[in-house]
Amino acid sequence: MAHNYSACRVAVLGASGFAGGELLRILARHPGMELVAAGASSKVGMPVRSLYPWISFEGSFVAAEDALAASPDLLFASLPHTQSMELLGAWDGGYAVDLGGDFRLRDPGVYREWFGAEHSHPDALSGWVYGLTEWRRPEIAAAARVANPGCYPTATILALAPLLAAGAVAAEGIHIDAQSGVSGAGRATGEGFDFVSVNENLRPYAVTGHKHIAEMEQELSAAAGSPVRVSFVPHLVPVTRGLLATCSAPLTGVASTEELLEIFHHRYKEEPFVRVMGAGELPATKGVTGTNVAEVTVRADARTGRAIAFCAIDNLGKGAAGQAVQNANLMLGFDEATALDTAGLAP
Amino acid sequence: MAHNYSACRVAVLGASGFAGGELLRILARHPGMELVAAGASSKVGMPVRSLYPWISFEGSFVAAEDALAASPDLLFASLPHTQSMELLGAWDGGYAVDLGGDFRLRDPGVYREWFGAEHSHPDALSGWVYGLTEWRRPEIAAAARVANPGCYPTATILALAPLLAAGAVAAEGIHIDAQSGVSGAGRATGEGFDFVSVNENLRPYAVTGHKHIAEMEQELSAAAGSPVRVSFVPHLVPVTRGLLATCSAPLTGVASTEELLEIFHHRYKEEPFVRVMGAGELPATKGVTGTNVAEVTVRADARTGRAIAFCAIDNLGKGAAGQAVQNANLMLGFDEATALDTAGLAP
Amino acid sequence: MAHNYSACRVAVLGASGFAGGELLRILARHPGMELVAAGASSKVGMPVRSLYPWISFEGSFVAAEDALAASPDLLFASLPHTQSMELLGAWDGGYAVDLGGDFRLRDPGVYREWFGAEHSHPDALSGWVYGLTEWRRPEIAAAARVANPGCYPTATILALAPLLAAGAVAAEGIHIDAQSGVSGAGRATGEGFDFVSVNENLRPYAVTGHKHIAEMEQELSAAAGSPVRVSFVPHLVPVTRGLLATCSAPLTGVASTEELLEIFHHRYKEEPFVRVMGAGELPATKGVTGTNVAEVTVRADARTGRAIAFCAIDNLGKGAAGQAVQNANLMLGFDEATALDTAGLAP
Amino acid sequence: MAHNYSACRVAVLGASGFAGGELLRILARHPGMELVAAGASSKVGMPVRSLYPWISFEGSFVAAEDALAASPDLLFASLPHTQSMELLGAWDGGYAVDLGGDFRLRDPGVYREWFGAEHSHPDALSGWVYGLTEWRRPEIAAAARVANPGCYPTATILALAPLLAAGAVAAEGIHIDAQSGVSGAGRATGEGFDFVSVNENLRPYAVTGHKHIAEMEQELSAAAGSPVRVSFVPHLVPVTRGLLATCSAPLTGVASTEELLEIFHHRYKEEPFVRVMGAGELPATKGVTGTNVAEVTVRADARTGRAIAFCAIDNLGKGAAGQAVQNANLMLGFDEATALDTAGLAP
Repeated sequence: MAHNYSACRVAVLGASGFAGGELLRILARHPGMELVAAGASSKVGMPVRSLYPWISFEGSFVAAEDALAASPDLLFASLPHTQSMELLGAWDGGYAVDLGGDFRLRDPGVYREWFGAEHSHPDALSGWVYGLTEWRRPEIAAAARVANPGCYPTATILALAPLLAAGAVAAEGIHIDAQSGVSGAGRATGEGFDFVSVNENLRPYAVTGHKHIAEMEQELSAAAGSPVRVSFVPHLVPVTRGLLATCSAPLTGVASTEELLEIFHHRYKEEPFVRVMGAGELPATKGVTGTNVAEVTVRADARTGRAIAFCAIDNLGKGAAGQAVQNANLMLGFDEATALDTAGLAP
Repeated sequence: MAHNYSACRVAVLGASGFAGGELLRILARHPGMELVAAGASSKVGMPVRSLYPWISFEGSFVAAEDALAASPDLLFASLPHTQSMELLGAWDGGYAVDLGGDFRLRDPGVYREWFGAEHSHPDALSGWVYGLTEWRRPEIAAAARVANPGCYPTATILALAPLLAAGAVAAEGIHIDAQSGVSGAGRATGEGFDFVSVNENLRPYAVTGHKHIAEMEQELSAAAGSPVRVSFVPHLVPVTRGLLATCSAPLTGVASTEELLEIFHHRYKEEPFVRVMGAGELPATKGVTGTNVAEVTVRADARTGRAIAFCAIDNLGKGAAGQAVQNANLMLGFDEATALDTAGLAP
Repeated sequence: MAHNYSACRVAVLGASGFAGGELLRILARHPGMELVAAGASSKVGMPVRSLYPWISFEGSFVAAEDALAASPDLLFASLPHTQSMELLGAWDGGYAVDLGGDFRLRDPGVYREWFGAEHSHPDALSGWVYGLTEWRRPEIAAAARVANPGCYPTATILALAPLLAAGAVAAEGIHIDAQSGVSGAGRATGEGFDFVSVNENLRPYAVTGHKHIAEMEQELSAAAGSPVRVSFVPHLVPVTRGLLATCSAPLTGVASTEELLEIFHHRYKEEPFVRVMGAGELPATKGVTGTNVAEVTVRADARTGRAIAFCAIDNLGKGAAGQAVQNANLMLGFDEATALDTAGLAP
Repeated sequence: MAHNYSACRVAVLGASGFAGGELLRILARHPGMELVAAGASSKVGMPVRSLYPWISFEGSFVAAEDALAASPDLLFASLPHTQSMELLGAWDGGYAVDLGGDFRLRDPGVYREWFGAEHSHPDALSGWVYGLTEWRRPEIAAAARVANPGCYPTATILALAPLLAAGAVAAEGIHIDAQSGVSGAGRATGEGFDFVSVNENLRPYAVTGHKHIAEMEQELSAAAGSPVRVSFVPHLVPVTRGLLATCSAPLTGVASTEELLEIFHHRYKEEPFVRVMGAGELPATKGVTGTNVAEVTVRADARTGRAIAFCAIDNLGKGAAGQAVQNANLMLGFDEATALDTAGLAP
C-alpha cells in the first residue's frame, strides 16, 4: 500500500482510559501518525496535557461525535461494549481499529449469548477482521475494519492455536487459568479495585462466564478446524500490568516437550513480537512490560498426557494498545513494528 | 487424653525460618505449650529475641541436636528435606510434627521418584500419619508422629477430595493451577526471590515436576478410592502470604453448582477452620491472612462438563504452622482451635 | 476499678470501616468485652458476618442512633469528623473512646482553624482526655471520655516528646516526614486510591496543611512546656498497613546517639507497647503489623547538629484500634495489654 | 561538534546490573550509538541476549579489560566504587561517563572521609565534570569525562539548588527525606532486599551517613555560593523504580508558594526533562517511570517559615542511565533528548 508519511490523521476514542492512554504513548513516537482528536466523554474540555503532561498535542478531550467530526484517516476506539457498536457500526470513514468487544464475534447469536444484548449492526460484522495479528495477518493487511482481540484471548490463542492447528492437542478437556494485572479492568472501577482490596490478595473472578471465552472458542475452533470448548478461570493479582495464561490441554498422542516446542518455533519463527522460550526458561510478565511482545512456551506432561502452554503479555501492550498499533501499521502499510517496543521495562 | 496444662514442653527445629517463626508466633499465645528450645543451625548462639523481639523466651538459637537434648514433650520440625528424615527418623521422644516432606509419602519408592533420594528410614514411614486434619482427624488424634502436609497439597486436597470422595468428578483429566506468595519459598532463597524480580511479575515454575504432586495424588487417591493423577502448575506472584488453588476436574455426570456446593457444605459443616463460600462469593487469600482458615468453594461449568473447585489459605497458616499446631492440639488433647486465629488480618 | 468480667457491653460506630473492622478483630479476643451493636450507616441491615465472616456476633449493622439505643457500657466511635462531635457530644452514657478528630483539640479556636468548622460542643471538650497512652496514662485511667490520637500524631509524639521533655531538642526548626499505608485513608476513598494509582508510586500529599499538625503541636508543646511548631509532610506509599515517621529536630547542645537513646530507654522502659531500638537497629513497619507496638529510636547527627527520631507503627493498630482498646482497658480496669498483640505478622 | 552518525562505538561496563541494563535499553533506540562491548565480570561468556532477549547485539558479556580493548569511542561505567577509579583513572580513550561515585567529589579528602578509602587517581579528579545536566550543561558539553550524579543527589539538587541559588532558603537547617525504589540498591543485594523483607514494609537506612551527602553538599554549596550542610535520611519502600525527595529548608525571608514556584519556572523553563508542577499538583514517581524526567515543585509553609521542595525521578532514568545518555548526547553533539523518553509508563 502506498502510504504518505506524516499524513495519517488519527483519532482516539476513550483516550482517557488505560488502553487509550497507552495508545497515545505509543502514537507519540510514531513518525507516520498524527493525533488530531482525543475523545473522552467524562473529560470533555479538559486539556489532554493535564492527564498526559508529556504529550505534544495541545487540544482538549472532546466528545466521541466531535472526534469523528475531525474526519480522521484512522480511528482507534477503546470504549465500553455497546458504545463501540453504535459509533463504529455507523461510521463511514477510512480505517478503524476497535479495542472493545463488539465486533470480535462473527455470529450475532453468540454475541447475544455472551453479552446479553442484541447486536445493533449485525450486518456490519462480516466487514470486520479479528485482529490477532500472527493468525490473521493477510486479512488484516487488506482490511479497513479490525476488531482488536481481548487481552485474555490474545494470550490464550497465541499459546493454544499452534497446538490445535498441528493436531497435537484435543479440542475437548482444555482448561485455562489466567492471571491479570489490575489495569486490565480499566480506570475508575470502584469497589474491589482499591489498593487495599487488591494488595496482598489473590482471587478468582467471573468463573465459567467471562465474555472473552466466546472469542477464544471462535478463534481456537478456526485454528483447529473443529469446534473447541475451553474452561477458563481468570484471577486478579496485585500487579498493575501483565497477563499470564496457563493452558492445559490433553495431548492427542505421545509427544515430548521438544516436539511441542518445535511446533511453536516453526509457527512463530518469523514473528517480530512472539518470543518462544526454550526448554530451560519460562515466560514472565516482567520481560514484556511496556512492549508488544508475547512470551510463549509449552511443556509435555508425560505422566498425565497433557500439554501445558504458557503466554505472558502486557495486557495494555500486546493485549490492547500495542496490538492495535501493530494492526494499524499493517492496514496502512507502515512497517509492522513501527513505534512498538520489544525491550521490556525491567526491572 | 488427660493433659496437664502448662506442662507441655516444646522444641522447634528450623525456628529461624518463616514457618518456624510463625510457629513461635502462634505458640506464644498457647496457654498449654511452653517453648524450651529453638533450633536454627545458621544462627546458633544468636538470641532468639534479636530475630523475634516480641518473644518472652530468653534463650538463644541452638543446633538441632541440642534442641533434642532438651527432651521436649513435643517437637516441631521445619527443616529442608533429608534433614528431617535423619533427625526425626532416629528420635525416640514423645510427640513430633514434621512440617517438611520426608514423612508424607507412604511408599519409599514414590519418595525416591519425586525427591531423587533414597529414604533413610523407610521402616519408620508407617508410624507417621499424614496430617491434613479435616481428612485424617481420628488417626492424628491417636498419633505420636504427624507429617504436616505441604502448602499446595493442603489447598488442593481440601478443594478436590470432597468431590472425588463423592464420585462427582473423575480421577483423570484433573488440572490444578496454584498461585503462591513468596514466603512459601522460605527465607534466604537467593536470586529470583529478590524484590525486584518478584514485584510486578507473574511467572510459573516447576512445571510438571513439583514434589508436592506426589502427596496430592496419594491423598486424593485415598479419598477417591482409586488412583488419581493430577496435572499441576504452581505460579509465583507478588504477595508475601497467601496461596490460591484453582482445580479443574471433569464431572462424572450432570451436576449443578448447588449440588456440588452441597457436597462441600455437608463435608465441612462441622469444621472450625474450613469456610465454605456460597454461590455468590469466592475465596480470596486476604480473608485468611494470619489464620488457620481455608476458604473453599466450587462451581459447575455446564458448558464444558467440568467442576472448578477453589481453596485459599495462608501458606504459613493452614499451609504450615497453623495446621501443625492444629494437629498438635489434637494429638495432645487440647481444644483443636487453641491459639489459632480465624479472623484474617484484613485489610 | 472494680470490674465485672464478661459484663462490659460494647458498641462500635463506624464498624464497617478499616479501623472499625480492626476494633472488631481485637474485641473478638477480649475476654471481658462483648459486642452488642455494630453501627455502619451505609450498611444498615447487612449481616455483620457478611463483612467479617469470622465473627461470632450474629446481628446486622445498624444506624448509629440504634447502636446508642443499645445502651452500651463502652462506645467506640470511628466516624468522619463532625459526625463524632454531634453524636458523642450529646451522649450521656458511660465510657467512650472516639477515634476521630473532633475531641482531640483543647481549643475550639484551633479546631475551627484546622477543620474549617465551628465545634458544636465546645463546652464538652474539657471532659475529654487526649489518649496517647504513654503520655497521659493517669488521666486516661480516670477518664470516661478519651479522644484517641490520630495515626500520624501517635507516631510523631512518641518519637519527639521524650526529646522535647528532656530539653534535648529545640521547639523550632522541627521537620517531620511520614509515610503511611493506604488503609490510613479509610475504605471507599475513590480516585487516587485505586490499586493502579498507588502501586509503584510515591507521592506527597496535604503539604503544609494536614489536620493532624494541630494535635502534634498541642501535645508536643505540652511535653516541651513551651510552644512547639512542626513542619509536616505526609506521603502515600504502596503498603496496606504501616506508618513510619522520621522526625528531624535541632539539638539544643552537643549530644551523642547514646545519650539520646538513654532518654528513650529511660522514658519507655516500663512501656509494654513501645520497643526502643538500639544503636544497631532501626524501626520497620513490618515488625509491628497487626500489633499495638510502636518501634522507636533516635540518632544524633553531629555534622548538622540535629536529632533524627523515628517511630514505626501499624496505622490501624497503635495508630487507631489497638490504642483505642489499650485506652479502654485502662479506663475500665482491665490489664492494659488485654487482647492486644505484640508479635508482628512477619513475614 | 561535528558528529558522524552511526559511527559512535559504545562500551558499557557493568552491563548486567540494573543501571547497565537500562543503558542498553536506551542505547538500543539511539540512532547514533552502536554497542560494541558489554562488560560484566560475573557473567563473562554468557550471551548478552540471554539476559536481555530483545537486544540485537549478538556478543557475550566480557571482562572490563576486554571491553576497553574494543577501543570504544564512548564508555559508560556502572561499577562498584573503587573499581571505577582504577579502570577509568587509567583509561586514555575518548569519552567516558561514570555512573559510580569515584569521580564525583572534587576533593580527595572528602572522598576519603565518606568512602573510607584513599583515591587512587586524585590528580585525575580535576578532569571530570559533575554531570547534573541542568546545572553544568556548558562544562558537560565541553568535557570528555563526566561523573554522573547519584540518584539521591540528582533529585535533591534539582529541588534545592534553585532556592539556594536565589537566596530564598538558608544554607543551614536543611533536612531532606527521600524514599527510593529497590532497584536503586542494584542487583543481587542479598538479605534485606528479598521480596518478603521489602514488601509491606517501610524502613529508614544509612541514617546520618549516606555517601551521597557529600555530593549534595558539594553541589548545593556551589549553587548557593557558600557552604551548605544537609541532614539526609533515605528510606527503602516497596517499589521497584522511583525516587522521591522531600526537602525542607528555612526560608530566608517571607515568601509565598507562588514566589518560590516562580523561581522554579524561571530556572527550568527551557529544560526538556524538568517538569515543574504548579500549585495544584504534586510530583509522583509514577509520572516519570521509564523516563529521563524529573518532576519538581515547591511550597512555602508560612507557619513554620520553611520551604518544602520536592523532586520525583526514576532512579534508573534521570537518576542513572537516562541522565548518563543525556550527558553523552551533550558531550558528543547529539540532540540532548535523543533516545530519551518523557512519557512515563503509567499506569
